[in-house]
Amino acid sequence: MTHTPDTGLELLSAEDRISRVLSLREAGDDQSLAELIAGWHGGEVAEVLEGLPSPDRNLLWSLLPEAIHSDVLSYLHDRVRAGLLESIPTEDAVAATLEMEPPDLAEVIASVSDELGEAIMESLGSDERSQVEESLAYPEASAGRLMETEWVAVRGDVSLEVVSRYVRRRGSLPPHTDGLMVVDREGHYEGKLAVDALLTRNPEQLVMDVMQAEADCVAVDTEQSQVAALFQRRDLVSVAVVDRERRLVGRIVVDDVMGIIRAEAEQPLMQMAGLEQGEDLFAPVLISARRRLLWLGTNLLTAFLASWVIGRFQATLDQIVALAVLMPIVASMGGIAGSQTLTLAIRGLALGQITDANTRWLAWKEIAIAAINGLVWALVVGVVAWSWFGIPGIALVLGLAMIVNLFAAAASGLAIPLVLERVGLDPALSGSVILTTVTDVVGFVSFLGLATWLLL
Amino acid sequence: MTHTPDTGLELLSAEDRISRVLSLREAGDDQSLAELIAGWHGGEVAEVLEGLPSPDRNLLWSLLPEAIHSDVLSYLHDRVRAGLLESIPTEDAVAATLEMEPPDLAEVIASVSDELGEAIMESLGSDERSQVEESLAYPEASAGRLMETEWVAVRGDVSLEVVSRYVRRRGSLPPHTDGLMVVDREGHYEGKLAVDALLTRNPEQLVMDVMQAEADCVAVDTEQSQVAALFQRRDLVSVAVVDRERRLVGRIVVDDVMGIIRAEAEQPLMQMAGLEQGEDLFAPVLISARRRLLWLGTNLLTAFLASWVIGRFQATLDQIVALAVLMPIVASMGGIAGSQTLTLAIRGLALGQITDANTRWLAWKEIAIAAINGLVWALVVGVVAWSWFGIPGIALVLGLAMIVNLFAAAASGLAIPLVLERVGLDPALSGSVILTTVTDVVGFVSFLGLATWLLL
Repeated sequence: MTHTPDTGLELLSAEDRISRVLSLREAGDDQSLAELIAGWHGGEVAEVLEGLPSPDRNLLWSLLPEAIHSDVLSYLHDRVRAGLLESIPTEDAVAATLEMEPPDLAEVIASVSDELGEAIMESLGSDERSQVEESLAYPEASAGRLMETEWVAVRGDVSLEVVSRYVRRRGSLPPHTDGLMVVDREGHYEGKLAVDALLTRNPEQLVMDVMQAEADCVAVDTEQSQVAALFQRRDLVSVAVVDRERRLVGRIVVDDVMGIIRAEAEQPLMQMAGLEQGEDLFAPVLISARRRLLWLGTNLLTAFLASWVIGRFQATLDQIVALAVLMPIVASMGGIAGSQTLTLAIRGLALGQITDANTRWLAWKEIAIAAINGLVWALVVGVVAWSWFGIPGIALVLGLAMIVNLFAAAASGLAIPLVLERVGLDPALSGSVILTTVTDVVGFVSFLGLATWLLL
Repeated sequence: MTHTPDTGLELLSAEDRISRVLSLREAGDDQSLAELIAGWHGGEVAEVLEGLPSPDRNLLWSLLPEAIHSDVLSYLHDRVRAGLLESIPTEDAVAATLEMEPPDLAEVIASVSDELGEAIMESLGSDERSQVEESLAYPEASAGRLMETEWVAVRGDVSLEVVSRYVRRRGSLPPHTDGLMVVDREGHYEGKLAVDALLTRNPEQLVMDVMQAEADCVAVDTEQSQVAALFQRRDLVSVAVVDRERRLVGRIVVDDVMGIIRAEAEQPLMQMAGLEQGEDLFAPVLISARRRLLWLGTNLLTAFLASWVIGRFQATLDQIVALAVLMPIVASMGGIAGSQTLTLAIRGLALGQITDANTRWLAWKEIAIAAINGLVWALVVGVVAWSWFGIPGIALVLGLAMIVNLFAAAASGLAIPLVLERVGLDPALSGSVILTTVTDVVGFVSFLGLATWLLL
């Protein structure tokens, strides 16, 4: 925080809020804590909850005015929300969801235990329940799961004046209404009447003459990542969602999309480290440990494979122990270079930039970079190894192995994610383990193999 | 692409468009290519340009109608845009920017070479030039650099009816106007009049009675990442930007923020692999190679340090060559476990979730996970090593070293990013190199050191 005079313009960051909460918490001053958070917006409370260890989460939750429970829940990430709801009595968890809209309810139900999900379902009226069931019937990560079901629809053959009177009588518009939906008698989507137009165009004009007929709409089964790309590509605030017959069924607004954009961009980082997308930093130890245990186990297999490879060359190592000293260099450089290519490829695939038609160009580029890197660093490690051990043969072997492994790294860094994507697996999830296996094995085999062949 | 009947509802992804362009390109059919892209929106063309190797980019650019050049430029990422503008004749580059708004122009000028930047500056009228200069005077990555300078302002003491008439006379609203700015006589920001209110409230009411007086505004020097967090926390479509005296100076809209959210979430992934945020996948080989060469060089230092550490134990290795075979396991598992902690910490810092007050809890959690992982995998590697080499002492040393290194990995995976952040360095940029250095050194020292001590 900068120390400018208080103009009321300092944005409080999540960090500032978390610090304040934790210091009141440590002082045991629950009264002041309740007062502090009482004026906060749901999104602000959610940010703070996500930055607290789980016991403190429950305390803060209990201090919140019940009226904002639903709002806070709608801002929390899946895992944090599920952890919180499952750690409080079921009736409190059900009560907290009472004010939520059906699409948000569906999201909650999909993320909590079956038991709690059923309890929430049972608390709903029949109308709401069928709306939630409808939402859950759409495939995961589809537009149908994301859309809101509140909108204002008008017909194309009425005048703007009539629409204005209708809106005024209605009394309010759903949040983020940048346009009204124009539909025909059967509910088919025809276009968007920008709110702008209502304010600026001649009131006697007909809706159909003023609306954007070519306004984007998306099918209800479109993937959310495609919807997010559309919002970014077209600078949208909202988009209509239609079924396969073009009947209007919902509306996606930009604030739901911001969450998707963030999650999508963050996913490869987390997955490449064997973490869950949206992993809860403050999850209880046992929950975090279980998943990480598996990840280390997977990587241990790779490490043992590398050891087994080295074991094949035990006789060579026995004769020239200097090889053992230099051995990790080639494997490690291959891993670093390969993960650069892998990261670029994974991001390129996520952005839809890599196609069959440009893969060849990319492969050529990565090979060319490997050649440059290989030659430069082979020379460097060769010179260093020579001056260290004084054996030109070892320097030669080290340099050659480096070149071999950097080529292998480039080729596999590109090929592994492409193949995984082709067979329908997530390249970010297992790409790095497979890559390390390749660069370790090629690194040790080339170095120790060349040494056996040339030096013994 | 699924093969449903064409309902006009299939969203064309970036990948689909890139494939079409490249296949027409290969067929040499520039005529059809020009027709294909003529109907595309600026954001769609930009997506395709970013997925083309650089020579193809220039061809596609030359086929574009000149009228949309500026629009396309405003969607391109910095690096791609700079590369494109610098590869075409200066007068064409200047012409392409002619239609851009001053804030976009400032962004272009900041990203291209000084020479081209000056040429663009010289082409501007004096009004525009001073607007651009004003924008460039704000600190990089501040709200001032992001904001648009077009808005509709009204006074609080007029009726909604008067506002409606004013807006109608004006004839249009700037894009993404979800509210009008309410300002006093001196231009101080007083609140937001939602467009909603104009449509639904009694026209005789005064603006000041209807406006949101507590509407968010941000100071012009606020960091863009803070602005993005505010948009997500509050579900905003636009926000007013004010100077330190609360005078209205601009307006940030959600589509600019989507780019920030994406870039922020993607940055750690790229930086941890030693790549640039927004790295151009299809950049020319020499440009890409230079940066990657440096990254490999940095990591080579780490590798040599590890080798030097191993070299200290050459005598031990000489006596028990089995140690050389098992040696990489401990270092590699430490690296994997440490990078999980590191990744979580880097993301937590970026989200503002980690504060002084909860660091202790986090440290305790990571240590506890390291203890569980250490015990489990120490046992496993011990058993495997025993059955492989039949020497219980080696198994014991391997298991103990594993436990030591997993603790070191947890401690340094958390401490390194916290210290880097504290001293003002970017944890994602150098965190992984430092971490690997620690886990390699501790891994080799603990394994070979314990072996020297216990087995010789």
